[in-house]
Amino acid sequence: MSYQPPVQDLMFCIEHLSHWQSVCLLDAYEDCELSDIGAALEGHARFCAEQVAPLSQEGDRRGARFDNGWVTLPEGHARAYAQFVEMGWQALTHPAEFGGIGMPRAVGAAAVEMLNAADMSFGLCPLLTDGAIEALLLTGSDEQKAIYLPPLIAGRWSGTMNLTEPQAGSDLGRVTTKAMQRADRTYGVTGTKIFITYGAHDLTENIIHLVLARTPDAPAGPKGLSLFIVPQKLVKPDGTPGAANAVTCVSIEHKLGVRASPTAVLDYDDATGFLIGEENRGLEYMFIMMNAARFSVGVQGVAISERAYQCALAYARDRVQSRPMNGSAKDAVPIIQHPDVRRMLMRMRSLTEGGRAMAMATAGLLDLAHHGDDREALALAEFMVPLVKSFCTERAVDVTSLGLQVHGGMGFIEETGAAQFYRDARILPIYEGTTAIQANDFVGRKVMRDGGETARRFAADIRQTEARLGRGDASAQAISAALAEARGAFEAALGWMLETDRKDIDAVYAGSVPFLMLAGNLAAGWQLARGALAAQAALGDGQDSAFLSGKVASALFYARHILPECATDKARILHGAPSLLDVAFPE
Amino acid sequence: MSYQPPVQDLMFCIEHLSHWQSVCLLDAYEDCELSDIGAALEGHARFCAEQVAPLSQEGDRRGARFDNGWVTLPEGHARAYAQFVEMGWQALTHPAEFGGIGMPRAVGAAAVEMLNAADMSFGLCPLLTDGAIEALLLTGSDEQKAIYLPPLIAGRWSGTMNLTEPQAGSDLGRVTTKAMQRADRTYGVTGTKIFITYGAHDLTENIIHLVLARTPDAPAGPKGLSLFIVPQKLVKPDGTPGAANAVTCVSIEHKLGVRASPTAVLDYDDATGFLIGEENRGLEYMFIMMNAARFSVGVQGVAISERAYQCALAYARDRVQSRPMNGSAKDAVPIIQHPDVRRMLMRMRSLTEGGRAMAMATAGLLDLAHHGDDREALALAEFMVPLVKSFCTERAVDVTSLGLQVHGGMGFIEETGAAQFYRDARILPIYEGTTAIQANDFVGRKVMRDGGETARRFAADIRQTEARLGRGDASAQAISAALAEARGAFEAALGWMLETDRKDIDAVYAGSVPFLMLAGNLAAGWQLARGALAAQAALGDGQDSAFLSGKVASALFYARHILPECATDKARILHGAPSLLDVAFPE
Repeated sequence: MSYQPPVQDLMFCIEHLSHWQSVCLLDAYEDCELSDIGAALEGHARFCAEQVAPLSQEGDRRGARFDNGWVTLPEGHARAYAQFVEMGWQALTHPAEFGGIGMPRAVGAAAVEMLNAADMSFGLCPLLTDGAIEALLLTGSDEQKAIYLPPLIAGRWSGTMNLTEPQAGSDLGRVTTKAMQRADRTYGVTGTKIFITYGAHDLTENIIHLVLARTPDAPAGPKGLSLFIVPQKLVKPDGTPGAANAVTCVSIEHKLGVRASPTAVLDYDDATGFLIGEENRGLEYMFIMMNAARFSVGVQGVAISERAYQCALAYARDRVQSRPMNGSAKDAVPIIQHPDVRRMLMRMRSLTEGGRAMAMATAGLLDLAHHGDDREALALAEFMVPLVKSFCTERAVDVTSLGLQVHGGMGFIEETGAAQFYRDARILPIYEGTTAIQANDFVGRKVMRDGGETARRFAADIRQTEARLGRGDASAQAISAALAEARGAFEAALGWMLETDRKDIDAVYAGSVPFLMLAGNLAAGWQLARGALAAQAALGDGQDSAFLSGKVASALFYARHILPECATDKARILHGAPSLLDVAFPE
Repeated sequence: MSYQPPVQDLMFCIEHLSHWQSVCLLDAYEDCELSDIGAALEGHARFCAEQVAPLSQEGDRRGARFDNGWVTLPEGHARAYAQFVEMGWQALTHPAEFGGIGMPRAVGAAAVEMLNAADMSFGLCPLLTDGAIEALLLTGSDEQKAIYLPPLIAGRWSGTMNLTEPQAGSDLGRVTTKAMQRADRTYGVTGTKIFITYGAHDLTENIIHLVLARTPDAPAGPKGLSLFIVPQKLVKPDGTPGAANAVTCVSIEHKLGVRASPTAVLDYDDATGFLIGEENRGLEYMFIMMNAARFSVGVQGVAISERAYQCALAYARDRVQSRPMNGSAKDAVPIIQHPDVRRMLMRMRSLTEGGRAMAMATAGLLDLAHHGDDREALALAEFMVPLVKSFCTERAVDVTSLGLQVHGGMGFIEETGAAQFYRDARILPIYEGTTAIQANDFVGRKVMRDGGETARRFAADIRQTEARLGRGDASAQAISAALAEARGAFEAALGWMLETDRKDIDAVYAGSVPFLMLAGNLAAGWQLARGALAAQAALGDGQDSAFLSGKVASALFYARHILPECATDKARILHGAPSLLDVAFPE
């Protein structure tokens, strides 16, 4: 099962959807040319396709292994990771000051997509390290940055997020891990953390755990959490890893998917930790890491969807079964000729491209916000992050399920590979905040807090795209009409949410996930529509017409088959709350 | 993870939805009382909950094992199966003439649901045996019936369906297994069959394979297939199993789910077979077995959904996390109090009860058709079977996915059990004809063949239910309105399908699965609505009000949250074909 990185579509998204004309003017990216980006992505694509993708099935079969307090990964993974470090891929988007290459976030998203499409288990290690780098860059002291950032950005060390405890998952206020300050101003960290992705492994020289814990006098609840650096091996004055810290891997989980990614239970027994920033502001800092990770998890959804699509497409071309219903052939034909197989493939393709398009647009907004100090971009980017996370991951579950279905009975056989994508994808709507948690964030912080202002701007921006499409050909007009209808459903739901928020908070949250899915569906359809406009413009320039026509086709299919779901979600939001709030569940 | 068989709801469905007032008047069931049925189901419920459900996780972990040409199942399964035989459960719905108990089909469906909820891997063996019994009853010679039916109905022997070959899955016309008539009028059967559920195992004394094969002079394609009985052990004149036949299990598959159910590759090397009925009519006979199995697979979808729902409900009551948004408590509460968790649970519950209701109604129609010679019932039953198969199984994938989601991170850990339901459920929309194959059957045979007559009668029946609900209270009226809108979407789609069938067959089949899902969604909503009417009537009689109010609540939730999807499917059907038929897929 080979993987062909979709570099052409990734470059299309960067050039036409990620606000490149503004991003390339930012000081941070002044030396960055599209041609350099293309070359970097081609190189990364080769690495992913040739070094990583071939490991994915064997990695799943063998899995991460726990033995005597430590974890080993499949041998191939260790070799490929060494290559990853040697080629410097971890550095792609990080600042030159600490050894990074300083590419824009959209380029980083493209790299994350390819690596995770090649193997999600493998991709998780650099993904977590990226999050740790981001948190240290924004909140670490100069000394901490000097010690930890260069080896993390080089990929020689990896990073982890230690939040969850058995009684504290979505509800981090319940964290009980303790941190006692010592005479030397370090802290002794004691407690048990669970679900720690890459919490123990043999790929890197050191592992830097970022740990939420509570100091003795801290207030109860989420406002009493502080964030600590707890290195697996204490760092010597020369910057190299030294003595072992008191962090032990107690076990790893036996999981449905991403089996070559170790999920550790870590026991901290007066382990030496270093406070990041100020006490009691840990959750705020952790959110920096978590928001970066949430965006990347959305991209993982696109990644696994793309991989599943390629696998299903290849099978559908190859598998010969049944004569066509329209009588065009007397013998059985490849199943890709059967209408329902085409429907499934187009559904997979348009959802994948839609997710990619919205992720890339959001990446550009994040750059404009953080490097250009653009407050409107910041508000829209923060509005989009929970959509990227939840839409791309919920749809990844659907897309990988369709991929399995295209294979028929063969899809249920593990050796075929389609089942692995289905298993791997299932964690995505759960980790880094479940879909319901994303919906709380979206409704509470991104929509209600500014009284719906950003949400209305989002709708107004879509209206502009509709208007441009409305002046185009029949396909463009059809996309415009479907987009207008979906946007109307969003506005109606938004109006209802804003009004209801004042009088019935339970009803608002009964509709929060449908509202999130409606907005995500619309956002993806909008970005595909922007892509269709760009493709039609480029078609006039005599560029690759098969690819560009394909972009219009994906947008049109999406408009006909996916956008109409927005009306259903609107109905659920406006009329669905009482039927679930009032009901009694039998004992 | 205990399982509580939903006997109360099953009895409610039998009494109020399965056309019991007509079924109990049939000669075949003249001695059958609801109290007997209740007692039988309570007994079966105890067996399923106490003897089978506890095996499910260990069975999944250990799986069926292939060794030296034969298959062993987990020990617990063999012990439970021996109990199953001793208690005579296989006989439940089969005719007394061959040792059966002769209960109505709805009772059989209830038993199939409970057994498969307890463990789908276990339930598959009796399910296939039921199919073989049905085929032999309708097409076997008197001698064949006398030899094979008593031990099959006793459960001492099991049955299999041998259709698929590597090149012939959905397309059975491509079957190449050969059958050469011998001098003694038996046939030598030679070929390889794959995906044979319970094709080899150690639960029964003998395995009766029903095998599709081709005689030397048979016409090409599906009209040249004959059906053969090929016993694993040849039957001695005294009726007991004797010498081994030339059927070898070459291997079993490594599957995503139902791992304790062996899926065998069988090699037939001039194995002795006995022709059923006439040559070249094999596919027609096999369809009898397949239709029984299709209905039962739909019931498996209900079964695994119920199990997943119970598991998620128990977790949601137990797991304490986060304060309620409405400020009603200062501390974290069980997550069942959070609106989105309630939404997920109600979605699971209403889809499960909706599937059960439509399966039970269909079971009653099948009895009226086959034992009462009611041609309208037959047409409607045949219309419903692909809906039961596809709607209940596609929704089972969604419901088990929601069940996993309710568990958050714990859902992804195999020991929790939610992941197993998700894996087990995934075969359901594939085997016994994929959803696309059901859609072909539905559109081609059940809707178009009679020019839409049955489909229109289906809609007219629904209109009657709407009218009755329209005279009720606010809940009833809300259900009526939602049902009317969904029925309108169905009629619009039906009109378009009938009209388009004359001019663009590809466009019809581009919308066949959305049409199937629309009709299935509507059928389930309709049966839930009938249930709500019955529940409201019974509430007036002072019966168990918590249960009966729950039936209305499920119907209302379904009306608000699930029925609105019909409009989306209508839009896909009417406007969605060109965007998938015209598109080019890149090489």
